[in-house]
Amino acid sequence: MTEKIPTLNIGMLGYGFIGKAHANGYKQLSYMMWPPPAIPYLYLICGRNEKAVSEAAKRYGFKGYRLDWKEVVSDKRIDIFDNCAPNHLHFEPTVEALKNGKNVICEKPLAVNGELAYEMYKISKDAKGKSMVAFNYRFIPAVILAKQLIDEGRIGRIYHFRGRYLQEGMVDPNRPLTWRLRKEFAGKGVLGDLGSHIIDLARYLVGEIVAVSGITHTFIKERPLSDNTSQKGTVDVDDAFESIVEFENGAIGTVEASKLCHGRKNYMYFEINGSKGSIRFNLERLDELEVYFANEGTNKIMGFKDVMVTESSDPFIKYWWPHGHIIGWGNLFAHELYHFVDCIINDKDVAPQGASFEDGYKAAKICDSIEESSLTGKRVELKY
Amino acid sequence: MTEKIPTLNIGMLGYGFIGKAHANGYKQLSYMMWPPPAIPYLYLICGRNEKAVSEAAKRYGFKGYRLDWKEVVSDKRIDIFDNCAPNHLHFEPTVEALKNGKNVICEKPLAVNGELAYEMYKISKDAKGKSMVAFNYRFIPAVILAKQLIDEGRIGRIYHFRGRYLQEGMVDPNRPLTWRLRKEFAGKGVLGDLGSHIIDLARYLVGEIVAVSGITHTFIKERPLSDNTSQKGTVDVDDAFESIVEFENGAIGTVEASKLCHGRKNYMYFEINGSKGSIRFNLERLDELEVYFANEGTNKIMGFKDVMVTESSDPFIKYWWPHGHIIGWGNLFAHELYHFVDCIINDKDVAPQGASFEDGYKAAKICDSIEESSLTGKRVELKY
Amino acid sequence: MTEKIPTLNIGMLGYGFIGKAHANGYKQLSYMMWPPPAIPYLYLICGRNEKAVSEAAKRYGFKGYRLDWKEVVSDKRIDIFDNCAPNHLHFEPTVEALKNGKNVICEKPLAVNGELAYEMYKISKDAKGKSMVAFNYRFIPAVILAKQLIDEGRIGRIYHFRGRYLQEGMVDPNRPLTWRLRKEFAGKGVLGDLGSHIIDLARYLVGEIVAVSGITHTFIKERPLSDNTSQKGTVDVDDAFESIVEFENGAIGTVEASKLCHGRKNYMYFEINGSKGSIRFNLERLDELEVYFANEGTNKIMGFKDVMVTESSDPFIKYWWPHGHIIGWGNLFAHELYHFVDCIINDKDVAPQGASFEDGYKAAKICDSIEESSLTGKRVELKY
Amino acid sequence: MTEKIPTLNIGMLGYGFIGKAHANGYKQLSYMMWPPPAIPYLYLICGRNEKAVSEAAKRYGFKGYRLDWKEVVSDKRIDIFDNCAPNHLHFEPTVEALKNGKNVICEKPLAVNGELAYEMYKISKDAKGKSMVAFNYRFIPAVILAKQLIDEGRIGRIYHFRGRYLQEGMVDPNRPLTWRLRKEFAGKGVLGDLGSHIIDLARYLVGEIVAVSGITHTFIKERPLSDNTSQKGTVDVDDAFESIVEFENGAIGTVEASKLCHGRKNYMYFEINGSKGSIRFNLERLDELEVYFANEGTNKIMGFKDVMVTESSDPFIKYWWPHGHIIGWGNLFAHELYHFVDCIINDKDVAPQGASFEDGYKAAKICDSIEESSLTGKRVELKY
Repeated sequence: MTEKIPTLNIGMLGYGFIGKAHANGYKQLSYMMWPPPAIPYLYLICGRNEKAVSEAAKRYGFKGYRLDWKEVVSDKRIDIFDNCAPNHLHFEPTVEALKNGKNVICEKPLAVNGELAYEMYKISKDAKGKSMVAFNYRFIPAVILAKQLIDEGRIGRIYHFRGRYLQEGMVDPNRPLTWRLRKEFAGKGVLGDLGSHIIDLARYLVGEIVAVSGITHTFIKERPLSDNTSQKGTVDVDDAFESIVEFENGAIGTVEASKLCHGRKNYMYFEINGSKGSIRFNLERLDELEVYFANEGTNKIMGFKDVMVTESSDPFIKYWWPHGHIIGWGNLFAHELYHFVDCIINDKDVAPQGASFEDGYKAAKICDSIEESSLTGKRVELKY
Repeated sequence: MTEKIPTLNIGMLGYGFIGKAHANGYKQLSYMMWPPPAIPYLYLICGRNEKAVSEAAKRYGFKGYRLDWKEVVSDKRIDIFDNCAPNHLHFEPTVEALKNGKNVICEKPLAVNGELAYEMYKISKDAKGKSMVAFNYRFIPAVILAKQLIDEGRIGRIYHFRGRYLQEGMVDPNRPLTWRLRKEFAGKGVLGDLGSHIIDLARYLVGEIVAVSGITHTFIKERPLSDNTSQKGTVDVDDAFESIVEFENGAIGTVEASKLCHGRKNYMYFEINGSKGSIRFNLERLDELEVYFANEGTNKIMGFKDVMVTESSDPFIKYWWPHGHIIGWGNLFAHELYHFVDCIINDKDVAPQGASFEDGYKAAKICDSIEESSLTGKRVELKY
Repeated sequence: MTEKIPTLNIGMLGYGFIGKAHANGYKQLSYMMWPPPAIPYLYLICGRNEKAVSEAAKRYGFKGYRLDWKEVVSDKRIDIFDNCAPNHLHFEPTVEALKNGKNVICEKPLAVNGELAYEMYKISKDAKGKSMVAFNYRFIPAVILAKQLIDEGRIGRIYHFRGRYLQEGMVDPNRPLTWRLRKEFAGKGVLGDLGSHIIDLARYLVGEIVAVSGITHTFIKERPLSDNTSQKGTVDVDDAFESIVEFENGAIGTVEASKLCHGRKNYMYFEINGSKGSIRFNLERLDELEVYFANEGTNKIMGFKDVMVTESSDPFIKYWWPHGHIIGWGNLFAHELYHFVDCIINDKDVAPQGASFEDGYKAAKICDSIEESSLTGKRVELKY
Repeated sequence: MTEKIPTLNIGMLGYGFIGKAHANGYKQLSYMMWPPPAIPYLYLICGRNEKAVSEAAKRYGFKGYRLDWKEVVSDKRIDIFDNCAPNHLHFEPTVEALKNGKNVICEKPLAVNGELAYEMYKISKDAKGKSMVAFNYRFIPAVILAKQLIDEGRIGRIYHFRGRYLQEGMVDPNRPLTWRLRKEFAGKGVLGDLGSHIIDLARYLVGEIVAVSGITHTFIKERPLSDNTSQKGTVDVDDAFESIVEFENGAIGTVEASKLCHGRKNYMYFEINGSKGSIRFNLERLDELEVYFANEGTNKIMGFKDVMVTESSDPFIKYWWPHGHIIGWGNLFAHELYHFVDCIINDKDVAPQGASFEDGYKAAKICDSIEESSLTGKRVELKY
């Protein structure tokens, strides 16, 4: 049976936090999600610091490493180019890889602004390879279950979506000015980093966003430089935003994110209210989904059900453990990369389960529009 | 000791759900919050339906009843006029009572719009009697504790306020067109009914609101008439709204309310994030306050504390039971009315613990501005 | 309609914490639970300290007071004798009152041991008046709902009951030696005070207990005297116990209580597991009941439902507020006393909704048996 | 740096649910817990079914497979013998491996009864290799943190331990008669399977258990045969037990487990109350620990803190993700096997972090004593 499992050669750009998550994902899917459509072979890893990239290659078992991403995207042996670089390096390597016929998975946000993201989306449409944006929260079993319930009509017509992604990572004013806090490298601040996640989930679960009002704000305007903490530099991106969103289907709601929320470690929460029920989700307890079905409950014995999404019948769960044995954040990448591998091998569309470059573009456009609304004080209608 | 407790004669307009709550509050404060500054004497109750109002008089022990509120506000024996009537009846009786020198407590929202509320505020300033808006959630021990923590600086500089008041009461399209759903009687829909509560708490806890963006919406546009359910009438007020709020002190956040949220029975929630900590509150568990103090916790043993606000040292709790023996929603009215009685007897300002008519006006003005923003698609700066 | 409401004259012994709760209960039921079967008239209150008892009489509006309980139980005008005295004063006044034909409600535990409780039970059987033990937790709407679900078979055959009642009140070794900590006055310690509550609920919900094993323990063996804190006295009752219980219907479980549990303010919790579902309850959130129905949930969308027991269709709730507006601990006494009044006026059995003296005796007997098991190290079979 | 990492050859017996967990653990520790003391090399896997074991070898990347465990324990190239077989196969292969000088990790319970476990313990003392019982819950970061807090005295003198392990897996009477339900293969039922886990944690966290009272019970006495579901066989082990435990340090409490608890998917819970604070843990939310510190909280702002045990300073967490990004049940095996590898390479004692064979023996002895108490109806004092 296993003799016939093909392999796909991976070329990865970046080896930081998110590169580690992807490497772990490729490895786990190879034996946990058995039999996989293909076995990912960790072929090349790429970064500018030779000491660090060579150590990463050894650690994760990559066959080799490169210092220049151009050597990766042009390498004929590479099947999948996996772009885990900072935001400002999403555009050029990804476009080059697409033009070279590679399958490309690119970290979110797709680009530092909607314009560049649109160009990437256009190129992806004509490209030979598959392309996917690494919005990994589309691969949380509880989130997929939420989507299934919505698609089956269990929640009815949707009235509200409330999404927020709150962290505390920037509340200390002495946290240095990393690339994420500089427009040049990140494009946007919390809006692009956390906001894009919850905006993508809003679109995945509820549908197209057609108008936004918003304010973005930078509360802590100066921070120590990363390489010289005795000097301060300017934070030129937001560290918090608030927005009102309107959906094509008539639903209205709010989307907000901040890294100034003490006690919120990695709190991405959404609540959806519909004519037949409600859904709640919290990333810090990602194995649970809270649901309320108006038609389920005799004699008013009704309330939110705290559902452990760990049944073998739940999305992706059959590959893991018996029910009640929770999976963790790291396991989501096995789901995500399995899906991408499956789309490549079996020629499937990455969307709607995964985020296409069109999804990546639209999320970027929405982020741009929230910024625009903040500047003009006006509601912005989206035209994609 | 008790010989000297004076009495105050109460004249109440309205005997529905909220009148019952006030009657119970007057009674409970008389013996639970011992010794009270004065014993409220239930003197007159007023309503148009004689059968119902006479029954209410017997039930609650009022000395007498009237069918015309003018006889109440002009009765010389009345010390406190308590306006529990629907919104459109807040203005005239309240103004008349103030002019007659009565102390007046008026249910929220103070008026059907900011203009009328402003007039009431102006009249109240020159009136002989005390005046208070019955924003009863200012009298939740956990909410008062939250304010104390904020005032003591335990949360530091406030970055965010997120308030929402969600119920499910209007999700059934066959729920009839009560006065709350008609502009003529209610002024606004959920925005005035639930929104005014959470807006008042935002001001009470965080400070003045200086700008809003918002959308109001009516999802269910027709409902059966109350008195003839085979016919339908138009809902001409909102059944949901979303808004972004900006505070004078720089904090930003969201305020939203809806009665279309399945599973949310009476969910008024707020979260406040500051430079030193965070606070969360949920009305459905009103005896608890969740707090996170960044400076409390060695070796990263930190997290939200679920505090039962039932210690004898907690606001108003000494009058009730030992810790852990929770109080209910009904008990809040004893606190509120005790405070009003105390302000009258001891000539204290009703604010900031209670809501003054100035507070009532500003809440109404903010509601107006959210409506305006929804119409114009523009951010509205508040000028009070 | 209300003209015909009769009155019942109350004679109460004790005016401390629990007397306050009963007084409040009598008052609230008179207008909240409208129309009541009878209006309780607070006639006499009794205690040894004249200053205190006269003040209590004024506070709660009793018509008069007495210093000797014999004058209360023999007073012909008294319809209900309400015994809120410490445990050692339950026997004699209650027996006397019963012999005088009074209706008697007696605080729990019924007596300081099973032998005396048995005598009270026997006397009650031949008495003219109704008799009830004030196990007030039988009057929590969520608990009554739990019983309804069990009686309807929604949980199926019961396998397990796990009950615990945890508080922190005795964890400070400087808390003085009150009557509750002295065998002479209390009979038992935590076993009688908290244990009897959870044992009564076990019997109410699951059925007869036929065997126990247990250990009782006194961790803090000396405490300052109440009236002279510079001296210490011996704690001669338990401050914690653990027990295994076996039910007539085959269910097995544990019952335990302690006042040495930091962070537990008033945590009485039970969990019941049956062949068709499970139930959980926590007194600190007494408006909620968590239920799991194995037959409710398509496609494994199953989990514990957090039910707010605040619907007008829920037990006793129609008398209070709209759903989601929680009731508090104090409100339970209105339910309890309403029930007793209803049984008197309409000649109903106090059980099974309320606890009869038979129930009080059996709870006392079970407490005795847990003590016996602790002494002998052997399982004790109950013979009532 | 990585050139010098040694390798250890693994020989594993069993390839079911728990074998999968171990295989995943060996793989993950090799690159996540970087640099590891040694890289585990998956050398041999063993089972009786050639088709299945050869497939497992391919899936997990074992170099080879065997059908007879004797070939594994005697193979000179094997450094670690990992016994993932059913309980009745723990004794002989483990003893043989120890005698052959292997390092041995054996799944829990160590043996089908205390007598055999004692023999294994004695042999392990004189053996050349390291030995460890795979009580994996000792490797939950939150549990280790709990132990640290206890050891630092943050909880003070311990009064109570309450442990329960509840699942619903056997509530369906049509679930077949697997080896876990047959005394011949399992030794005990829920008592050995779930009970041994919570008993081990009680000892790990609180200290030695010196006496028990208990009852074991089999509610569902017949089940369909695994290989012929039209026939039924007898369940000759318990499916639930209750027990009272007494600790050497004076603490008392309860330990219980059942697989008949609807809604409980994998609920292992413990609560510890001490003179200075309390601790709560729930396996279904294994990234959280709830703590209450009596000395932490000004002005009674006190409550249970819900601590996310996901800080880089928390046990084992630095190897994973940023805080708030939860780990799952599967990750615990990387911790456990890392520890065993570390003990081997750096000649450390497996206890007290890991469970020694002495720990395994004592847990087995306690299980035996609970069974004995159930038979005799008497409290059993433990003599190890």
